[in-house]
Amino acid sequence: MTQGSSDSAGVIDLLGLLAYAELGSFFRLADDAGLAPSLRSKGQLAALAAAEQAHYQVLRDRLEELGADPEEAMAPFVEPLDAWHSRTEPQSWLESLVKTYVGDGIAGDFYRKVAALADEETRTLVEGVLAETGRAEFVASTVRAALEETPTLAGRLSLWARRLVGEALSQAQAVAVARPHLAALLAAQRSETGDGGGLGDLAAVSRMFASLTDRHAARLEAMGLSS
Amino acid sequence: MTQGSSDSAGVIDLLGLLAYAELGSFFRLADDAGLAPSLRSKGQLAALAAAEQAHYQVLRDRLEELGADPEEAMAPFVEPLDAWHSRTEPQSWLESLVKTYVGDGIAGDFYRKVAALADEETRTLVEGVLAETGRAEFVASTVRAALEETPTLAGRLSLWARRLVGEALSQAQAVAVARPHLAALLAAQRSETGDGGGLGDLAAVSRMFASLTDRHAARLEAMGLSS
Repeated sequence: MTQGSSDSAGVIDLLGLLAYAELGSFFRLADDAGLAPSLRSKGQLAALAAAEQAHYQVLRDRLEELGADPEEAMAPFVEPLDAWHSRTEPQSWLESLVKTYVGDGIAGDFYRKVAALADEETRTLVEGVLAETGRAEFVASTVRAALEETPTLAGRLSLWARRLVGEALSQAQAVAVARPHLAALLAAQRSETGDGGGLGDLAAVSRMFASLTDRHAARLEAMGLSS
Repeated sequence: MTQGSSDSAGVIDLLGLLAYAELGSFFRLADDAGLAPSLRSKGQLAALAAAEQAHYQVLRDRLEELGADPEEAMAPFVEPLDAWHSRTEPQSWLESLVKTYVGDGIAGDFYRKVAALADEETRTLVEGVLAETGRAEFVASTVRAALEETPTLAGRLSLWARRLVGEALSQAQAVAVARPHLAALLAAQRSETGDGGGLGDLAAVSRMFASLTDRHAARLEAMGLSS
């Protein structure tokens, strides 16, 4: 692996993180199929999962182009992402859908925030991966329909959504501590947007992660949940 | 669902069978990822699984085009295909690879044999799905490499391959009994190729399935196994 600077080490980390996040989501979605109530929804899950695999492939190819070993780049993120999945294992079809929507949403916000910092080719690629949203729209509408039918589900699912975010922020913090190059990349982004201070990378990363939850409320609303 | 004849009912059955076979393989491959020895082989499994999902989508779309309800068309094949998977659950990574190679191989032979009977558009579509082979080549070469390293594995894996085929033929027989239109379509194909007799559809189907094992020996050899 040839790296010119700690900045490019941060980009390799970023791509490795995103690649394993996609691969992990692929397997998680496939795994949740047992919860699907019909053959049709199983098929819809399979389609979502296949899209994650396609993203994984694009990110993996980009890592190879950059001269990195893709598996080596992904390795540091296997444990925190697997930990997030195992701490947030859905117990029902609705919990699985909420997890998909919330998880993809946070991931998307994160991609958007950091893509601006990478080299142009990486940025274009990450934006391309992001552009394919809308596929998950059936997820939000299915949750909304279920809540209209059984409004009493809303409280429990709202708590579930809160737990998903809490566990994600906790794993993200662990990653920021373990991967200084990545943290520096993220912190740089904060200072460029004008609110960086002298608090160091970790604090900057912390604030960035907190800001990820801004859009979370809108996503909850799209599903008919409250924050 | 509008059907002109029992022939078209057979075609709907055929497409439903193939579609669910692809969807089932998708989930099976994703499920076997826990057995994969490395992040790299996990990624390769995900790629194979995504290809099965793409085939599923093509077949499902074709069912809709023909005015059939795709889930209704798949429904009769859920139980026998799920039964095959649950009776042949791999206990190791190598067993999983052998299952992929043998299962895809038999399915491919079956597709080839029956595609000739469907309408031209369906035939073109099924042949397109088949054309994407070669992707599974890493499977055969991985098994070969493992056997070169540990030749004593060959006996057990050969028995495993035999069981895979035996269970497949048994489920196929059950399907032929339960789906007379499909059996008639398959039987017609045998008589067209000149060896149909007065034995009735079930016997003809039986012989057709037996002939599927002809190419099985070549596949075993490709993996370094004996039949």
